[in-house]
Amino acid sequence: MVKIVVDMMGGDNGATPTIAAVQKFLNDHDDVEIIAVGEEKVLEPLKGKVKIIPSKTIAPMECGALQAMRDKDSSVYKAVNATITENADAVLSAGSTAAFLSLCTLIIKKIEGVDRPALITQFPTLIKGKYVVILDVGASSENSAKELYQFAKIGEAYYQAFYDKEHPNVYLLNNGTEEGKGNPLTKETYALLKGQENFKGYIEARYAFQGEADVVACDGFTGNIFLKGSEGMAKMMGTLMKQAFLSSGRAKLGYVFAKKGLAGMLETMNYKKVGGALLIGVNKIAVKAHGNADEESFYGSLNVAYTSAKKQTVNKIKETLKL
Amino acid sequence: MVKIVVDMMGGDNGATPTIAAVQKFLNDHDDVEIIAVGEEKVLEPLKGKVKIIPSKTIAPMECGALQAMRDKDSSVYKAVNATITENADAVLSAGSTAAFLSLCTLIIKKIEGVDRPALITQFPTLIKGKYVVILDVGASSENSAKELYQFAKIGEAYYQAFYDKEHPNVYLLNNGTEEGKGNPLTKETYALLKGQENFKGYIEARYAFQGEADVVACDGFTGNIFLKGSEGMAKMMGTLMKQAFLSSGRAKLGYVFAKKGLAGMLETMNYKKVGGALLIGVNKIAVKAHGNADEESFYGSLNVAYTSAKKQTVNKIKETLKL
Repeated sequence: MVKIVVDMMGGDNGATPTIAAVQKFLNDHDDVEIIAVGEEKVLEPLKGKVKIIPSKTIAPMECGALQAMRDKDSSVYKAVNATITENADAVLSAGSTAAFLSLCTLIIKKIEGVDRPALITQFPTLIKGKYVVILDVGASSENSAKELYQFAKIGEAYYQAFYDKEHPNVYLLNNGTEEGKGNPLTKETYALLKGQENFKGYIEARYAFQGEADVVACDGFTGNIFLKGSEGMAKMMGTLMKQAFLSSGRAKLGYVFAKKGLAGMLETMNYKKVGGALLIGVNKIAVKAHGNADEESFYGSLNVAYTSAKKQTVNKIKETLKL
Repeated sequence: MVKIVVDMMGGDNGATPTIAAVQKFLNDHDDVEIIAVGEEKVLEPLKGKVKIIPSKTIAPMECGALQAMRDKDSSVYKAVNATITENADAVLSAGSTAAFLSLCTLIIKKIEGVDRPALITQFPTLIKGKYVVILDVGASSENSAKELYQFAKIGEAYYQAFYDKEHPNVYLLNNGTEEGKGNPLTKETYALLKGQENFKGYIEARYAFQGEADVVACDGFTGNIFLKGSEGMAKMMGTLMKQAFLSSGRAKLGYVFAKKGLAGMLETMNYKKVGGALLIGVNKIAVKAHGNADEESFYGSLNVAYTSAKKQTVNKIKETLKL
């Protein structure tokens, strides 16, 4: 049985998509127990199906770490706390990233040997069905070489467990692939990683989506720019494509014919299936869903939490860091 | 008259595309003088049309700064040198970036008040025909806050001159837009830029292509990841789109109908028209064309050199830094 605590209230779209996603997820899986945290009245539709932990307030999206710790009645505080008190496997929230990260770090606590937890996310690649995981994409604003080294090791362990691949290709994101290239941080980290079995060296940002890399490690600032820059470009191209297909009757007709072919592309690029990011390096599975998650996206996040629990990613990371 | 020195030999594709591009550029403009540097025999087709400076060797793509300085017979060395001896306005090369950057810095020399030259490049945005310039995209691997401050000022001056916009919107690339966000470098730079007339604050990578920003300043390492990550994503989406249209007879037919509509999108995303990057902050216009530039792309680079010279971007930067 996989036990997942869900902050039902934190996202931009309130509880409507989270309730729908939880109901569907329970229908699709018979080995899941959900603990739903939120306003009792709002969660009425889930009564009898899940355990409900009532909460009174909702931490706002711009909520910082301090405020999050203070408001112990918020859905996100109660959800993270219940992960420990209910001995759950995973916790999930679509609320403020800063609030969720700090609560997870302070309440669930870091795995021994981890200096800083990281946000890890999956990206589609040119190889159909193949994902690359990138970390840290923004839990930190600055990292030491030791922390960046740990990100590579944690990412490797996560990939091994989640994707059942014993020897994932682990890379360090850099501004060039030759050994002399890089900034002081990447050079120092390279020296620490060099000689490790699965470490394949530096990778440039443009090759990260080709499908060769399984794990790409970077500091949180760089990873944030990388993630958001790529998302921005993907969004721009998506918008331009849409405009193109709407530009004339002829183009619209073209879309009708090409639709089925394009569906594969859209499926690959569907970030909703990916389901947000994981805070990795803490003692439970902690999934940060997109703030504007709809039902499909939130379902994807539930799936990440569920699969990570089944694959025992936290235990795998603990074992790796003990070595 | 605009005088441009061209390294005809440095690119991956040799002199065939550069000769074709130069010939076409001369046909299209009657106020341009080209000085072509390369093997005399190879440049035979240009005889009588341009001044030819013979060179013997070609600096390899992996050529570093030291090697570039030593081989004084290379086309790139002779081209950069001729920019001074022939008192030209601009120099253009598709060869090794490291070689070109170091030669330009050492021979053409930095503008007074510039600590580090930067690579600046244009990106398309969601607004048709509107570009955003981003710097530094990789001349440095590490920068101080003072250098990053200068990038913002140089980029602003360049934009003012090149796009004739007196008040461009200048942003600092960051992992968040609130004033407290950032790494130590962006925070320190923010403090230096704060209060400047055209400085609009932090921008996240995902909003850089929306069209609101005119100039985005970042350190060379971050800019390189941002540029290449976005390029990688654009390339992946382009490939997936192509695969989609080739996936069936129906999809192919769809493409035929949508082709005209899609042409606008392809035009927006056509990096060839953009023509590579400029090394900015030196006393001449220095354009680094793509290493694999074909005729169209090299023509685009010639155009960047020509327009920058006409718009007197170097003088504008000098004036700005004097203030």
